[in-house]
Amino acid sequence: MVLGNLLLLEDCTMVDVNIFWQNIEDLATISDPNMPYTRRSFSSYFLQGRAFLTTKMREYGLETFIDPNGNLIGFKKGQTQKTIVVGSHSDTVDGGGKYDGVAGVCAGLEIARAVQNTELRHNLCIIDYLAEEPSEWGISCIGSRALSSHLTHKDLQLTFKGETLSDAIRRVGGSGESVHFNRLNLGELCASFELHIEQGRVLEEKQCDIGIVSSIVGILRLRIVFKGQSNHAGTTPFYLRDDAFLKACEFSLFAHKKAKQLSQQTYFVSTIGKIATSPNASNIICSHCEIILDIRSDQDQYIEQYRNVLKHKSEQMHAYFHEISFNAATLCDMNLIELLRYNARRLNFESMIMPSGAGHDSAFMAKIAPACMVFVPSKNGISHSKDEFTSKRSFEKALQLLYHSILQKDLE
Amino acid sequence: MVLGNLLLLEDCTMVDVNIFWQNIEDLATISDPNMPYTRRSFSSYFLQGRAFLTTKMREYGLETFIDPNGNLIGFKKGQTQKTIVVGSHSDTVDGGGKYDGVAGVCAGLEIARAVQNTELRHNLCIIDYLAEEPSEWGISCIGSRALSSHLTHKDLQLTFKGETLSDAIRRVGGSGESVHFNRLNLGELCASFELHIEQGRVLEEKQCDIGIVSSIVGILRLRIVFKGQSNHAGTTPFYLRDDAFLKACEFSLFAHKKAKQLSQQTYFVSTIGKIATSPNASNIICSHCEIILDIRSDQDQYIEQYRNVLKHKSEQMHAYFHEISFNAATLCDMNLIELLRYNARRLNFESMIMPSGAGHDSAFMAKIAPACMVFVPSKNGISHSKDEFTSKRSFEKALQLLYHSILQKDLE
Repeated sequence: MVLGNLLLLEDCTMVDVNIFWQNIEDLATISDPNMPYTRRSFSSYFLQGRAFLTTKMREYGLETFIDPNGNLIGFKKGQTQKTIVVGSHSDTVDGGGKYDGVAGVCAGLEIARAVQNTELRHNLCIIDYLAEEPSEWGISCIGSRALSSHLTHKDLQLTFKGETLSDAIRRVGGSGESVHFNRLNLGELCASFELHIEQGRVLEEKQCDIGIVSSIVGILRLRIVFKGQSNHAGTTPFYLRDDAFLKACEFSLFAHKKAKQLSQQTYFVSTIGKIATSPNASNIICSHCEIILDIRSDQDQYIEQYRNVLKHKSEQMHAYFHEISFNAATLCDMNLIELLRYNARRLNFESMIMPSGAGHDSAFMAKIAPACMVFVPSKNGISHSKDEFTSKRSFEKALQLLYHSILQKDLE
Repeated sequence: MVLGNLLLLEDCTMVDVNIFWQNIEDLATISDPNMPYTRRSFSSYFLQGRAFLTTKMREYGLETFIDPNGNLIGFKKGQTQKTIVVGSHSDTVDGGGKYDGVAGVCAGLEIARAVQNTELRHNLCIIDYLAEEPSEWGISCIGSRALSSHLTHKDLQLTFKGETLSDAIRRVGGSGESVHFNRLNLGELCASFELHIEQGRVLEEKQCDIGIVSSIVGILRLRIVFKGQSNHAGTTPFYLRDDAFLKACEFSLFAHKKAKQLSQQTYFVSTIGKIATSPNASNIICSHCEIILDIRSDQDQYIEQYRNVLKHKSEQMHAYFHEISFNAATLCDMNLIELLRYNARRLNFESMIMPSGAGHDSAFMAKIAPACMVFVPSKNGISHSKDEFTSKRSFEKALQLLYHSILQKDLE
């Protein structure tokens, strides 16, 4: 261990945050000019971004190709049949994402550059997953979903402007089919890493350098619809009213109170961000109010418990209760969490174990490999905005942590 | 009085609800064909409707003209200098109003027809007030506002699609200036009557034939804006949240509770019908929530008291409190209320004294004349909709009541 630590400290010089930073800046110039920083998946800007990444991968000695699922892969052959994956995504939402996703791809790139002249035991596979952000075809994480066999035939037939998702994947260089990682002849997955900006304020608030992700939350989406009776606001006394908006208010405060109680037990959040009222006129009593609840927790049983409480309350209030979607929580790999935590301590970085409240490609990779994520602080917690920012110093720490953890993993 | 009562019962045959009903049906055919029943003020359908009304007025022996304010007037000269006005409006909102307004104009017409061959003591003036419904120029009750000198020079300069309100009034036959009733050489106002559908469910609920309006409510409109912080719904724990929608829910329930308390004292309603949230995305915490309160009471001091309570609550919650508009309550004339109540009893109609929760031309006429309104039940309280309906039988009672009350007033 003593030798390991010494090696580790010397190696610190080998990832260069300035090169990493410059790659991010260069990618940022490839954007829809009307809406920085935008490279929507499948768009021409996205393909230009990938051309840049491909050039860099080759420059750093990687073999590059687009896999059948439309993922851009940079591959460095090792001596064993085991493979370490590092990746994230280069596509963005509209108007946001200078670092979201991009930082993880560029971190993989920079690690590949750092080990360019080093012979690794295991294969190193840098992946720019296809379309992590919600795509025009209505689904997200297309590339990682496919690698883990979670992109269905039905998904591939989703159509946008006359083009099926399958055709769109073919257009960006894939085969248009969904192919599991194991069938790509890239070896046997032994670890999947992803560096990502936090997209929240917890690290900043706690003045912590690094978040080591313990789990990616489960997400339940509910639609609750309250019915009332539209009537004239002036001529309808209270005893003749049936006001859908007031019901929604009561329900929303109830849902918030219950969620806060659960948040004492574990990571638990519930948000009502989308509200629609009808007829939405100042002088007419609301006859229809619809709210969408976004419920997340690292522990599915709390989501289940909350769902039941809200279902019961909806029934009491004669509201329509509809479950839009549920994705179970994903646990990160305990050994990788420990590896990252150990190295963070060695490097004197303040780290904390935290759940990821947002979905990521790693949620799918965790289904087929030991997976873990490294979070870096987001300034003011902002993401999906042109104001998204993470400092070079923060990235440097995360890069070093990831680099050394991968090197250690390579020795296993 | 005995003689009066006998006369009254005999005269009952003289207003004919079938003719009244046919006039309403004929007017209903004059509508924007894509959106029955629509005759927006100043539109070609509106002018066609007025051409029909003018023909009928002349057929019933009235002298007709458009006054300088754009009101259509049918005039029957009496023996004195006193004038009794009966009127309402023939313009409609989009897609609604087969009876709203129209019934009051047709009631005036039918009374004029009934007295066609009778010499009255006072002048009888049937008015189709210009643009009672909110017009494209942003204001309502344009004709009655002008007659009572409440249409300002500034109002006349309001512009829609390059045309000032003044020019629009000229286009429909007025002079484009605001001219008080007293300057029209139509005599001295001694009473103003208006028959109108209730636009609420109170009469129907109480199985009452007739509403005699005691006052037209005061209306306060408030805009309250709650500020929060938009953040990721998944990555922002409760202790880092500032959710504008939850604040709006708390405020709305508070405002409702306080309004219900006041409604124990007098006619008091408060409605939040218009809500806007931003960014209004299911996975982003609400940063901006704006609600519009529509507050009405027949007693201004309760409105004032409520305003103060809400202002204080807004300050406590760091919300932005903005008063959009306030129109004070208008009292109807006690003598006319008594006259109508007396005749309803004589005619064996169930009547009740009630405030009008909606605004009407009579609110302006009450500023220059003893004024009162007669309400007829609206089926299910529906108005401003193609489903608006009042039965012929209900109208018959209101017509008779109005007719006999006008004849009695004429004797004074």
